[in-house]
Amino acid sequence: VKIAVIGAAGHYQVALDGSREDKDAVICAAAPGCPEEDAATLGEACRKENPRCSFYEDWQEMIRQEKPDITVVNSWYGQNDRIAEFCLEQGSAVYAEKPFSNTMEGLNQLKACREKSGVPLGIMLTCRYEPWFLTMDDAVKRGLIGKIRLIHAQKSYKLGTRPDFFRQRDMFTGLFPWVGIHAVDWILHFGGTPKEIMAWHSADENRGMGEMEISAAGILRMENNIFATLSADYLRPAGAATHEDDRLRLTGTAGVLETVNGRVYLEDEKEAKREIPLLPGLNPFAEFLKSVREGKTQELAEAGFEATRAALLLRDAADADHLIRTV
Amino acid sequence: VKIAVIGAAGHYQVALDGSREDKDAVICAAAPGCPEEDAATLGEACRKENPRCSFYEDWQEMIRQEKPDITVVNSWYGQNDRIAEFCLEQGSAVYAEKPFSNTMEGLNQLKACREKSGVPLGIMLTCRYEPWFLTMDDAVKRGLIGKIRLIHAQKSYKLGTRPDFFRQRDMFTGLFPWVGIHAVDWILHFGGTPKEIMAWHSADENRGMGEMEISAAGILRMENNIFATLSADYLRPAGAATHEDDRLRLTGTAGVLETVNGRVYLEDEKEAKREIPLLPGLNPFAEFLKSVREGKTQELAEAGFEATRAALLLRDAADADHLIRTV
Repeated sequence: VKIAVIGAAGHYQVALDGSREDKDAVICAAAPGCPEEDAATLGEACRKENPRCSFYEDWQEMIRQEKPDITVVNSWYGQNDRIAEFCLEQGSAVYAEKPFSNTMEGLNQLKACREKSGVPLGIMLTCRYEPWFLTMDDAVKRGLIGKIRLIHAQKSYKLGTRPDFFRQRDMFTGLFPWVGIHAVDWILHFGGTPKEIMAWHSADENRGMGEMEISAAGILRMENNIFATLSADYLRPAGAATHEDDRLRLTGTAGVLETVNGRVYLEDEKEAKREIPLLPGLNPFAEFLKSVREGKTQELAEAGFEATRAALLLRDAADADHLIRTV
Repeated sequence: VKIAVIGAAGHYQVALDGSREDKDAVICAAAPGCPEEDAATLGEACRKENPRCSFYEDWQEMIRQEKPDITVVNSWYGQNDRIAEFCLEQGSAVYAEKPFSNTMEGLNQLKACREKSGVPLGIMLTCRYEPWFLTMDDAVKRGLIGKIRLIHAQKSYKLGTRPDFFRQRDMFTGLFPWVGIHAVDWILHFGGTPKEIMAWHSADENRGMGEMEISAAGILRMENNIFATLSADYLRPAGAATHEDDRLRLTGTAGVLETVNGRVYLEDEKEAKREIPLLPGLNPFAEFLKSVREGKTQELAEAGFEATRAALLLRDAADADHLIRTV
C-alpha cells in the first residue's frame, strides 16, 4: 500500500504512526500543498518512516508519477476539497483533514466526486478513536444511560503560536470548521441529524490573529427533541496542564456519562458517579487502512460530510446571526 | 421585624433559617397561598420558630390583620406576582420565590407596583449566596481570569416525587423559569445583559409529569460578544450522590474558573488547574433582612426582574422555536 502525503498543516503524523501498524504500508512520497507551506518538517518525518521516500515540489505531479494507493491530504485547510478531489479523480483513496471543505458548494462537489469515482475517502475526525470516545460509545450502545436527551460538548485549546494562515478564513476555515467540528461530530454521532442550528462566534480578544475567531458557542436541535450545546475556543490558559480540554456530557433517561481529562464517568439510577474502565484507543489512520481493505469506508466518509456540513452551518448561523433550519 | 409566610411550595425554610440570625426577627404568621396547598408542614416549621405564630386560611386576611414588615411569598409559583403585588400594596416588604412572574405582563406590573409603592422586594435566587458563587464572583472581581468571553451553566436535578401542580405550566411556570432561572441569573451576573436568546425545551420522557418540561437548552449573546450556553433538566439519576449537579464555567482572556460539586477550580496563565479556597456562604434571607435595614434592596430586585425576564424569553424562544432579539 503506497501512501503519499500532501501538506504539513494538519495531523499527518497520525497517518505516519498508523502506517507503521500495517506491515504492507509504505510512505512513498510527500509534497507541500502550496508553495507557501514549509515542508521541511514533513520531509524529515517521512524520511524517518522510509529513507527512500520521494519529495516533490508539485503535489499534482507527485500523484501522477507515484500513483499512491492512499493520499493523506493536510495542507492549509481551505484547500482540502480541491486537493482531495484531484486525488480521487486520479484513483487515489484520500485521508483528508477536516473540514472536508470550506464551502457548502465545495462539500457537495466533493461528495459527488466521491460517489462518481467510487474511491474511498476518510477524514481526520481523530477524537473518534480516543479511549474516552470508544468507551462512551460502548456504554451508550449497552444502554447504560437510556435514551440521550441532552448533550454538552466543549473544545478548548491553547492558542500558543499558530501559523500565519490561521489569520485568513479562506485558508483556516474558522473556529467552528477547524476546532468545533470535533464537538459537532460527537453531537451528531450521539444525537442524530440536526434539524435546527444557532450559533455565534467572535474574533474579539484574539491576540492579533486576524480573522480567526477565538470564541464560539452553538446550540443544535436534533430529531426527537434531543438538544445539544457546544463551545469552542482558543482561550485555554498557557498554564493549563494539557493543550486541550475536551469535554462531552451525555444526559440520558437512565443516567449520565461524562468525559473530563480523557477519563469517563458514569452515574445512573443505581449508583453515584464513578469512573469506568477505558477501552483501548485506536490509531485513526490504521483504522482507515483496515476499512479500505474491507471496503467499509462509507460510514466515516458520511460522518465527515455530515460534521463538515453542520460545522459550516454553525459558521453560517454565526455570520448571519440567525437560526438555521436544516430541512 | 414581623415576618409572615404565604405558601409552602418553595424554599420558605431558607427564610426561617435566616430569621434566626436576626434577634429582632420573629415569624408572626403563616397561611397557604391557595386552598389546594397543604400547609401542615409549613405550620409545623413555623411553630418550631415561634410557638405563638398565628395561622390563617386566608393569606389576604393575614396581611391585613398582622401587618407584617416582611412577607415570604412561596405558594404555587404561577401566583408569585399576584400575591407579591398585594403585599407590596399593603406596605409589606416581600421576599418572593422565583420567578417573579409567569408572564411578561405580570412581571412589568409587579415592577411598576414596586416602583410606585417604594416597598422593598427580594427574590429567592439562593445560589448567589453559596460559597462557590461568592468565591467565583470574588475571583472575577479580582481580575483572576481577565475578561469573560464564554459561559456555560448547568442545572440538573433529580425528579424524585414532585407536587401535582408541577404538571401545569400556569402554576409551575416551566423548567426555564423555575429551574433554569438560577443558571440565567449566573449568566447575567457574570456576562451582562442578553441581546439575543435562543432555546428549546421538551416534555418528552417526562415520566408522566404532564406539561412539565424535563429537558431544556439555551444560548445567549450578551454585549461585547460574550456568549453563554445553558441547560436545565430533571434527569439527574436517582443514584447520584446529591439532589443537584450545578455547574458554572467562566472562560476568560486570562484564565478559566469552574465549579463542580460546590468546589471552585482556577487555571490561568501561570498555573495548572487547582482548587481555590471557598469564601463562607451566607443565608439569602438574612442578607435580605440586612439589605432592607440598609435600604439596599435595589440590586437584588433588579437581578430578579432581569433573570425572570430572560427566563421567560428562553421559554418564549423555545415555545415559538425562534431566535429572540431583546433590543
